[in-house]
Amino acid sequence: MPAEVLDAYVSALRTVGNPASTHGHGQRAGELLETARERIAIRLGCDPAEVILTAGGTESVNLAVKGMYWARRRRGSGPVILVPEGEHHATIDAVEWLRDAQGARLRWLPLDASGALDPGALAAAVEEEGAERIALVSFLWANNEVGTVQPVAELTALARAVGVPSHVDAVGALGQVPVDFAASGAAALSVSAHKIGGPVGVGALVLGRTTAADALLHGGSQQRARSGTQDVAGAVAFAAALDLAYGADRDGAGRAARMTRLAALRDRLVAGVRAAVPDAVLRGADPAEAGSRLPGNAHFTFPGCQGDSLVFLLDAAGVSASVGSACTAGVVEVSHVLRAMGIPEQEAAGALRFTLGPETSGAEVDALLAALPDAVARARAAGLS
Amino acid sequence: MPAEVLDAYVSALRTVGNPASTHGHGQRAGELLETARERIAIRLGCDPAEVILTAGGTESVNLAVKGMYWARRRRGSGPVILVPEGEHHATIDAVEWLRDAQGARLRWLPLDASGALDPGALAAAVEEEGAERIALVSFLWANNEVGTVQPVAELTALARAVGVPSHVDAVGALGQVPVDFAASGAAALSVSAHKIGGPVGVGALVLGRTTAADALLHGGSQQRARSGTQDVAGAVAFAAALDLAYGADRDGAGRAARMTRLAALRDRLVAGVRAAVPDAVLRGADPAEAGSRLPGNAHFTFPGCQGDSLVFLLDAAGVSASVGSACTAGVVEVSHVLRAMGIPEQEAAGALRFTLGPETSGAEVDALLAALPDAVARARAAGLS
Repeated sequence: MPAEVLDAYVSALRTVGNPASTHGHGQRAGELLETARERIAIRLGCDPAEVILTAGGTESVNLAVKGMYWARRRRGSGPVILVPEGEHHATIDAVEWLRDAQGARLRWLPLDASGALDPGALAAAVEEEGAERIALVSFLWANNEVGTVQPVAELTALARAVGVPSHVDAVGALGQVPVDFAASGAAALSVSAHKIGGPVGVGALVLGRTTAADALLHGGSQQRARSGTQDVAGAVAFAAALDLAYGADRDGAGRAARMTRLAALRDRLVAGVRAAVPDAVLRGADPAEAGSRLPGNAHFTFPGCQGDSLVFLLDAAGVSASVGSACTAGVVEVSHVLRAMGIPEQEAAGALRFTLGPETSGAEVDALLAALPDAVARARAAGLS
Repeated sequence: MPAEVLDAYVSALRTVGNPASTHGHGQRAGELLETARERIAIRLGCDPAEVILTAGGTESVNLAVKGMYWARRRRGSGPVILVPEGEHHATIDAVEWLRDAQGARLRWLPLDASGALDPGALAAAVEEEGAERIALVSFLWANNEVGTVQPVAELTALARAVGVPSHVDAVGALGQVPVDFAASGAAALSVSAHKIGGPVGVGALVLGRTTAADALLHGGSQQRARSGTQDVAGAVAFAAALDLAYGADRDGAGRAARMTRLAALRDRLVAGVRAAVPDAVLRGADPAEAGSRLPGNAHFTFPGCQGDSLVFLLDAAGVSASVGSACTAGVVEVSHVLRAMGIPEQEAAGALRFTLGPETSGAEVDALLAALPDAVARARAAGLS
């Protein structure tokens, strides 16, 4: 956690009081909370009343998908949920539960080879199902494994034109691209603090004023569609992390300049990997296409390797990488994202994701590039079994 | 937050890494997390695999009540939920949603005048409904407003004997009485860290090995019945808060001695209030009856007063009190707990709850007693309107 965020967090932790209490301590906590909510709203391009603080990205996504499904069904919508293949497991597992336990019907939308959802595919599905049969559509702002950025406003506009609300999972996009709720056209948008240097266990669902959603957590009605004592310190830290991610540096450099630096570092990593391992294949969108890929993401498949062997070997050399999503409880299996992109299983087995952040240095990229050839050679010797 | 807990929390916050990642940072976070889970399990009398970390009491209660309802229904149970009047709003609002949106049928169990659920009333309801029709029973370990402790083991045994699982909401009881999951006979038990000096936004559901519950938050399956990146620092702080609440002091005094001190302070407060305002009525169980009342709870009604006027006037004198539950979003209405105990609305309007904790001093009790007569006189002058 960056020092600025940790300082803000710890200082707020020393604030006592439940913001819902009517006595003085509670009122001061409530003021801190609402100031943080306003700062979060400004950064996310929404109204403070639209910011529902949650315990993180998973809760936000579950609240959006399930809450909107229940609310829309009660208002007469059909049971269809449109969801692209290759979504984050929070969405996949939530909609599959809605199918298995709540009567939802899932329509999976295909991804193209770059990992993007083609607006034509969404339009065709809406046309075929009929808008009144569709409860909602939910999709990632940017794919969390291969970093492909979706044409968000185009997709939401298509659905909105026929009265279908969109939930956009912006957990992985936050901090790397501008995330403006109003401009996105989404009915609801999920974000998480810890992806941008804030605390784990803090997130938000931006729920549009006119978007109806049943609560997942019922209780004292502390927030619209979300009960539970509100985490004042978490909100303050989230606001501080957003300031760091989107505000100007102390030296005046803005987010755009930082992201340009990050993309340049990523391009250096990509070029270095290609030079070191010529048959490595970059997956996801072409970084040369402006705005098509998260600046901090580089994703490769290494033929003849197991991704988890590479992770292990690089880790021993001091480099942290990931076979894909870190969110599947240590279970290693071929990525469903790469499968959705049409990549054969044998190639997908050698997947490796590098994530660069504002703290990543050129020296770290060089250390990776120095360690990579040996790691790949060893992983190849170990083979694909 | 006590210094010991804050120190443990901040030190863990400096630990980087997602415990589900396979690389080295993640593994170290995972070790910290599992050590904390073991410490929590020891304090709660359960197995570490039964500790599901959540974002707090509200999530724990919602997961238990809804998750068990769905899982039991799928296994053929009927739709009845037994729930006492006077429960916390997390339970009431969750079961009412299950009724309104998911076909549950609620059977409200009466409280006696002390705020306790009589085992005879539970037995009668089970008999009348028929065990196979009942999905679950959910009740508070101790009432959060009037502090009345339930005969937990007796109630769970009654339900268990006919195959009905019990969820026990121990959020308000934790730290004040021993909370032993195995001895309680519950199928699931909710607790929260911030009620015992831990961080807001951290809690646990103890879910018995053989208890089935659908997840509320789906995703990467990081925990049984609960997905989402796990809050390592929160778990460490929760363990530290439990050590403070249940472990021996540095000077060797144990929880029992501290609770005896707390109860004595509470008795001094009760005697002082009665001396200062002779027509004030203590609500809830008689403190003289051992184990019947949380040691840190004193709850009165003051005839001819509005509780919220008293809160305001005492706050101005530097004393924090509450009209009842702090969890109803600043909305002041007559307590449903007092209503369930059969207290007329006019009397219930003058309710005031004092909560004493390990940090409460005799001087603070004296300050309250000094400020009280004037506050009551002014509140009476303002009247009941």
